[in-house]
Amino acid sequence: MKAEIISVGTELILGNILNTNTYYLSKRLWEIGIEVLYHTSIKDEPKFLEEALNIALGRADLLIFTGGLGPTSDDMTKEVICKTLGIDMELNKEAEKDIKDYFYSLNRPMSGNNIKQAYLPKGAQYLINEIGTAPGVYIENSGKKIIMLPGPPKEMKLMFNKYVIPLIKQDYIIKVQTINTIGIGESSLETILMDLTSSKNPTIATYPKEGQVDIKLVAKGYDEDKVDCLLKEMKERISGRISEYIYSYKDEKIEEVIVNKLKRKKLKIAICESCTGGLITSKLTKIPGVSEVLERGIVTYSNKSKVEEVNVNKTTLDKYGAVSEEVALEMAQGILEKAGVDIAVSTTGIAGPTGGSNKKPIGLVYIGIATRNSSYAIKSIFKGDRESIQKRAALKVFDELRKIL
Amino acid sequence: MKAEIISVGTELILGNILNTNTYYLSKRLWEIGIEVLYHTSIKDEPKFLEEALNIALGRADLLIFTGGLGPTSDDMTKEVICKTLGIDMELNKEAEKDIKDYFYSLNRPMSGNNIKQAYLPKGAQYLINEIGTAPGVYIENSGKKIIMLPGPPKEMKLMFNKYVIPLIKQDYIIKVQTINTIGIGESSLETILMDLTSSKNPTIATYPKEGQVDIKLVAKGYDEDKVDCLLKEMKERISGRISEYIYSYKDEKIEEVIVNKLKRKKLKIAICESCTGGLITSKLTKIPGVSEVLERGIVTYSNKSKVEEVNVNKTTLDKYGAVSEEVALEMAQGILEKAGVDIAVSTTGIAGPTGGSNKKPIGLVYIGIATRNSSYAIKSIFKGDRESIQKRAALKVFDELRKIL
Repeated sequence: MKAEIISVGTELILGNILNTNTYYLSKRLWEIGIEVLYHTSIKDEPKFLEEALNIALGRADLLIFTGGLGPTSDDMTKEVICKTLGIDMELNKEAEKDIKDYFYSLNRPMSGNNIKQAYLPKGAQYLINEIGTAPGVYIENSGKKIIMLPGPPKEMKLMFNKYVIPLIKQDYIIKVQTINTIGIGESSLETILMDLTSSKNPTIATYPKEGQVDIKLVAKGYDEDKVDCLLKEMKERISGRISEYIYSYKDEKIEEVIVNKLKRKKLKIAICESCTGGLITSKLTKIPGVSEVLERGIVTYSNKSKVEEVNVNKTTLDKYGAVSEEVALEMAQGILEKAGVDIAVSTTGIAGPTGGSNKKPIGLVYIGIATRNSSYAIKSIFKGDRESIQKRAALKVFDELRKIL
Repeated sequence: MKAEIISVGTELILGNILNTNTYYLSKRLWEIGIEVLYHTSIKDEPKFLEEALNIALGRADLLIFTGGLGPTSDDMTKEVICKTLGIDMELNKEAEKDIKDYFYSLNRPMSGNNIKQAYLPKGAQYLINEIGTAPGVYIENSGKKIIMLPGPPKEMKLMFNKYVIPLIKQDYIIKVQTINTIGIGESSLETILMDLTSSKNPTIATYPKEGQVDIKLVAKGYDEDKVDCLLKEMKERISGRISEYIYSYKDEKIEEVIVNKLKRKKLKIAICESCTGGLITSKLTKIPGVSEVLERGIVTYSNKSKVEEVNVNKTTLDKYGAVSEEVALEMAQGILEKAGVDIAVSTTGIAGPTGGSNKKPIGLVYIGIATRNSSYAIKSIFKGDRESIQKRAALKVFDELRKIL
């Protein structure tokens, strides 16, 4: 079954709100085995809706509309679809009662135009909205399934999961296996996997994020065991070639992997940041339960704080400068000692937009790593603006931690 | 000019990523006077792209494609558009040189398939990508303007603002005045501004972001002075009513305003974070030039580090607990003394998802503020998940700093 999602709403077209409904519906539809092919967003105007409906009827079997089911005169999704398909509308007693009950439960009077919401296409299945006033609609017409859901994401999600999924679920299974990589570029990955990328089942696609690439394998079939087997085989072939770059098979963030590794090994960490300015600590502290493993973080932004907080030698600063391998090492060793942890990392660099020189260009970052047994520093040069340089330096730290943990 | 935005990318259709490009482009296009009518998203496959192109040519004058300009074989936006329109492709020497220079500057070898990116439609205008390898394209064909931009949002935005806007800007002037507010909700704002919101020129719209609301005034006309005057009058009327909530008229982040105020007053700041875990320091260090004013930041995640780093009294911790007004105050006072700065802030709270109790629920956050003359603490309870609570606590700190600076 091929699906098209049509979002009706001027606020989307004006760029006032992000279209999170389409994002959510796409993910859920793929998960239940329905192939999504198109997303369309249009203004709240009959002619655009009629046009979008006609195009979608010509190319998809399942049409999901969101938005335009409210009580005001702008809301015309049901009305235009019925007119275009030649279906009459009629008052649905059950919907009418639910809307009245809804207002009663809120202790608020029902506005007169809310009754409009209880009119549904003749022969339609009424989809209950437990947390709002806009009923959903399911109709079948000339072999096409048409679903209308309200725009507010909370209402839409609840109704989709509870009432729509049972109506459209497929026997045909589609499963997705993610492989999260770090430290290798998209084109290098493609070169290594070249002969595999023509595979039809599973298909293989690469998705670059800043400094990382996700690989997605999508397998299809009627037999769940076979689908699982197809995914497993391909996953193993790919892993065999690029294992050193893979940090997860579970669509996780790299910092989640780091926190979990630290937890499992019962290791404590401390962070001393200069150019990344707290970004590494902040990313780690977004992960629930990090307090078991993160002892402290210090942003030694000034030279004075480097000396006072983590015992960097004043002569090292004078001789090599704050952005140097030597200072990165002393920062990591200093916070390791001070916090009494098992592992410590540091960053010092030039994030820009000013402060670069020929010898020390913008983007130069030293990372220090210290453990109870050893310590070392890594030099990198990152491209991009201030934020990109900070982000990539943080990723590099996580990649390094992944390798040593 | 009527515009359609077409996003090419299987990752969008699969629900792997949110379509932030369309959101951004819609907003910017309206701001420069171009009416957006449709958003379409499709898979990375030639037949879908060809179909979307043909539909868009039939209903829009300006077609903006994003995505599918990468080096891999999936990337086929340019190729399919050229084939459909009957345009040949040729190597663009300038683009080729830029791509080579890009790899040279990264000190990385250029992968063979990157050269594919330098092939552009014959007669096209080459749009430079300063921070990536995918060139943009501008072509005119049978009275339609067609623009192709890379999918990564940073590259797309930079190229759109620098190279695309001058190519599509209208004589008809549309100007936007932003009013950034903090500390007031959208519905309260709407109530205060009720009588003004029906204004047609400028129009007034409110855009809530987490914990903040931006007000956008959009004025239109052929005479620039008149447009400016309309905006200025409305800006003054609104400012008169809600001045205490306005932190900028320049569409800035609140942290930019804080850094600039500190710079102007030549004040130094230090941050001691617990529940926000480095987020405040990290947000401040994203602002260029912050090193003039930020002395250091410490994330005292453990109780031990609160005692050792910022001299919190062990008995205060035992008596009141880490999440308390008393500890927040001692943290701020402690880092003020230690760092020798003019102003210090601290946070301690329960970000969740676990760790809450009846007396100290998830979302409870104490903020400490210390200066040379005085110190005080603020208690707040924020709603939402871990990340929302951290974000809102950071915003509250910035709002408080704005008021006292």
